[in-house]
Amino acid sequence: MIRNTLPRYEILSEEAVATLDRGWRRIVSEIGIEFVLPAAVEEFRRAGQAVDGSVVRLDPEFVLEQVAKAPREFDVQARNPARSVHIGGDHMVFTAVYGCPFVRVGSERRDATMADFENLVRLAQAFPQLDSPGGTICEPNDRPLDSRHLDMVFALQTLSDKPYMGSVTSGPNAADTIRMTEIVFGGREAIERTPAVIALINVNSPLRYDDRMLSAMLEYVRAGQPVVITPFLLMGAMSPVSIPATLVQQLAEALAGVALAQLVRPGTPVILGSFLSNTDMQSGSPSFGTPESAIGLLCTGQLARRLGLPWRSGGGFTSSQAVDAQAAYEAVMTMLPTFLAGTNYVMHAAGWLESGLVSCYEKFVVDIEVLRMLQAEFAPLEVDEASLAFDAHLEVGHGGHFLGAAHTLERFRDCFYRPLLSSTENFERWQRNGGRDAAERASEIWRRTLAEYEQPPLDAAIREELEEYVTRRRAELGD
Amino acid sequence: MIRNTLPRYEILSEEAVATLDRGWRRIVSEIGIEFVLPAAVEEFRRAGQAVDGSVVRLDPEFVLEQVAKAPREFDVQARNPARSVHIGGDHMVFTAVYGCPFVRVGSERRDATMADFENLVRLAQAFPQLDSPGGTICEPNDRPLDSRHLDMVFALQTLSDKPYMGSVTSGPNAADTIRMTEIVFGGREAIERTPAVIALINVNSPLRYDDRMLSAMLEYVRAGQPVVITPFLLMGAMSPVSIPATLVQQLAEALAGVALAQLVRPGTPVILGSFLSNTDMQSGSPSFGTPESAIGLLCTGQLARRLGLPWRSGGGFTSSQAVDAQAAYEAVMTMLPTFLAGTNYVMHAAGWLESGLVSCYEKFVVDIEVLRMLQAEFAPLEVDEASLAFDAHLEVGHGGHFLGAAHTLERFRDCFYRPLLSSTENFERWQRNGGRDAAERASEIWRRTLAEYEQPPLDAAIREELEEYVTRRRAELGD
Repeated sequence: MIRNTLPRYEILSEEAVATLDRGWRRIVSEIGIEFVLPAAVEEFRRAGQAVDGSVVRLDPEFVLEQVAKAPREFDVQARNPARSVHIGGDHMVFTAVYGCPFVRVGSERRDATMADFENLVRLAQAFPQLDSPGGTICEPNDRPLDSRHLDMVFALQTLSDKPYMGSVTSGPNAADTIRMTEIVFGGREAIERTPAVIALINVNSPLRYDDRMLSAMLEYVRAGQPVVITPFLLMGAMSPVSIPATLVQQLAEALAGVALAQLVRPGTPVILGSFLSNTDMQSGSPSFGTPESAIGLLCTGQLARRLGLPWRSGGGFTSSQAVDAQAAYEAVMTMLPTFLAGTNYVMHAAGWLESGLVSCYEKFVVDIEVLRMLQAEFAPLEVDEASLAFDAHLEVGHGGHFLGAAHTLERFRDCFYRPLLSSTENFERWQRNGGRDAAERASEIWRRTLAEYEQPPLDAAIREELEEYVTRRRAELGD
Repeated sequence: MIRNTLPRYEILSEEAVATLDRGWRRIVSEIGIEFVLPAAVEEFRRAGQAVDGSVVRLDPEFVLEQVAKAPREFDVQARNPARSVHIGGDHMVFTAVYGCPFVRVGSERRDATMADFENLVRLAQAFPQLDSPGGTICEPNDRPLDSRHLDMVFALQTLSDKPYMGSVTSGPNAADTIRMTEIVFGGREAIERTPAVIALINVNSPLRYDDRMLSAMLEYVRAGQPVVITPFLLMGAMSPVSIPATLVQQLAEALAGVALAQLVRPGTPVILGSFLSNTDMQSGSPSFGTPESAIGLLCTGQLARRLGLPWRSGGGFTSSQAVDAQAAYEAVMTMLPTFLAGTNYVMHAAGWLESGLVSCYEKFVVDIEVLRMLQAEFAPLEVDEASLAFDAHLEVGHGGHFLGAAHTLERFRDCFYRPLLSSTENFERWQRNGGRDAAERASEIWRRTLAEYEQPPLDAAIREELEEYVTRRRAELGD
C-alpha cells in the first residue's frame, strides 16, 4: 500500500460533470435497474422505490442518501497485522490478476491448475509491490467446480498473510468464505469489527444484477465485509460506443448496487468499481490498454471522489497474446493513468495477459517492475536547499564529472530507482550474458522468487480447523 | 502537430519553484557558465557581465531580461506549407530519433549507413504522427565525415516535405545547412521572415558550452533560425545525483544560452531544451525511461511555462537492447508524461533504442503506435446530452447487447481508436496467422510503409541548385 500524495489528474469540466450527473439520474429513474433476486427487489420496495417485476426505478435523491451512508475510508485486516490495508483517501492498494481460465509460462499456454493458483499466490505474497494476491488469481480447472472455492480460499489464507478476496460464485460459496475467514480471524464479531475479506461483485451489464452475484453480495454485506461493485463495461457490447454514455451507465449501475448494500446494512464498506474498456470494432474482440479505457479511468476517479466513495479500477491490461512490446505499452497505458487518477483499489495489477484470459508468470514480473517504477515516480519530490547540492557544483566545476563527487559517493546506493527486470547493460556485455530479452529475464526472476518463497507462519490449531472445515464441506458438496 | 488542450500535470509547489529559482540564480552568478568561444564571451562582456577567462558570471536579472526577448510561440515553415508547424502554447510537435551511430533491423545490429538514413527519413515522412524527421535520424557512417552533413541535409530536403533540423557539427557545416535552406525556401530574407530549419544545441554539461556547438549556434541565431538549447544531463555523470540539483543546473545552463542567443539577435526564436535522465549506479551506464526522468520532465514543463519559453523534452526513451517489453514500458514511461507536461517540441519520438545508440526500424513502428494512442487519448472528451446516448439505453434495455444497436451501427467505423500494430485477435486465430509478436508485426509494417512511400514533389530547378551546391562543397571539403 502506498499513499499517493501527488495531484490528481482531472479532465472533466464542471459542466461535463453536471451533464454526467443528469445522465445517471435519468437512467436509474426512467429505465431502472434489474435485480434478478426477489430479496433484493424487496429491499427497494420496502424503501419506497418503484418496482415493476424485477426492475426497480430509483429516485436519484434516495440513491444519494444511501450512498452517503457508506464510509469514505475503511480498514481491511490481514492475518499478519503488518499487512493490513487502508482503503480510500490517497491510499492505493494493489492486487494481482483475477479470474483467468488459462496460464502462460514462457511459450506454453494451457489450462490453469491448482498448482498454478498456489504458485501465483506465492508470487503475490513475495513481491512487496502487491498488497494482496486478490482472489481467483487463476481458475484451478483440475479441481471440482462445486468445491474449488474451498481450495482457493484455503490457499489464499495459508500461502499468504496478506488480505484476500472471497468467492462470489454463489451465496453458499460466499458463506463458506466468510466462515473460513471467521476461523482465521477469531470469529464473526472480529471480522464485523474490522472486515477481513473483500468480494468482487460484477454487474451483469447493461443495467442488470443477476441472482448469483446478488446472493453472494448479500452474504458479504450482511457480514459487513466490503464489496467492490463493478459494472462490467466493454463499450460496444455492454454499453454504448460513447465514453460519456458509458460513464453514466457505470454510475447508474454501481450506485444502485451501493444503495442496495446500504439498505441491507447501513454503513457497510463498499468500493465503487470500474472495469471499462472497449470492443475492437474490427475484430469484435475486447480491447485493453486503449486510449478510451485510460480516459474512462481518469473520469471515473474524478466522479468517485465527488461521491465520497473509495473506488477501484486500473491494472496492467493488455490484449496481447505474448509478453511482447504490445503487452508492455498497453499495461503502462492503463497503469500510469491509474496512478494519475489515484485509484484506491487496483485489481489486475500483475499477471494479466490476453484480454484477461491468461494469468502469465512472465507478465507478472513485467507488471511488478512497472509498479515498482510508478510507486517510485509518484512519491513526493523533496525540494529544499540541501537538495540543490550546491557544494557538488562547486566541487565539480565546469565540464567535470559527478561520478566521483563527495555528494555522489554519499548517496550512490539509493539515489535512484534500481530496476528488478530492466537492463542497462551495454550491447556487448548483454550479448555475452546471453542476449536475453525482458521476457526471458522475467522467467528467471519468477523462478528464483518461487524458489526463495517462505510460507508465512499460521497457528497450527487454526490451520487444523480450516482443514477440517474444507474436508467436511467438500464431502457435503459431493466431491 | 496536435494541440493538447488537456490540463497540464504539475507537481511542484510554489515553495519548491521558489527554491529552484534561487538555485539557478546562485549557479549563474556565483559559479558562472563557461563559453569556450571568444566571440560568445565578448557578447557577455559587452553586455556588462563579469568575465573571467572563458567563464562568465551572470546577473540573474540580466538573464531574465534577455529571456523575455524570446518569442513565446513561433512558426517554422516546411517546403509544403501544409506541413509547417507552430511551436509553443498548447502545440506539440513530434520528431524522430536523432544521433544514433547504429541501426537495428530485426535481430541484426550494425553500423548505420546513408541508405538507413534515407529509409528512416522516408518512414518519418510517411507516418502522419511525426511532424518532422528531425535531423541526424542515424549517422551515415559510410559517407565521409567532412561532408556527410551535406548528404543528410539533402536527404531531409528531398525525401521529406516536413520541417527538418540542421547540422551542428561545426560553424561551417551550420552555414552549409542555412545556405541549402535558403535555396529551398527562396533566399535569406524568406527564412529570416519565417524560420525554416531548427538546430539542436547541446550544452557540454556541466556548465560548459564548447566551441563547436557555440560556433554552430551563432550561425543559426544570426540567421534567425530557432535553436533548441539543451543541457545534456545524466544525473550522476553530468549533474549531481539529485533531481532538484539537476533542475537548477538545467535552468542555469539553458537560460545562459538563451541569453546569448538574445544578445546576438534579440527576438530570435529559442526552445528551452531538456534531456534529463540518470546513470544506473550499478552498471555505470545511462538509464532511460526511468521514474527520475519522468519526474524531471514534468518539473521542466512547469518551469518552462513560468519562463514563457517553448520547450523541448520527452521521447520514446529506453535502455533496452531489443524491441521487447522493456523497450515498450520504458518508452511509454516517458512518452505519457511528455503529453501530461505538454512538451512543445518532442525529439526522439520514434525509433530510439539502446540508450540512443541505435535507430531501430521496428521500435520506430512501436513508437508510432504509442504516439497514435496518446494523440487520441489527449484529445478533448466531448460531453453533451447527445453523447449520453439515452436512446441506445432505451433500445437495448436490461441485460441486452449494444453491438446491433442503431447508435452503434451509425458510429462503429470511427467510435474508437483503431490500432496500427496492436492485435486483439483471439489466441487460436493469432496462432493460425503465425503467432507473431509485436516486433515481428512491426517489421512487416515498416517494410510495407517503405514500399508504399511516395517522394514528395520538388521543383526541378531547386533540386538542381541543391545538387550543384552539394557537389561543389563536397569537392571543396576534399571528399
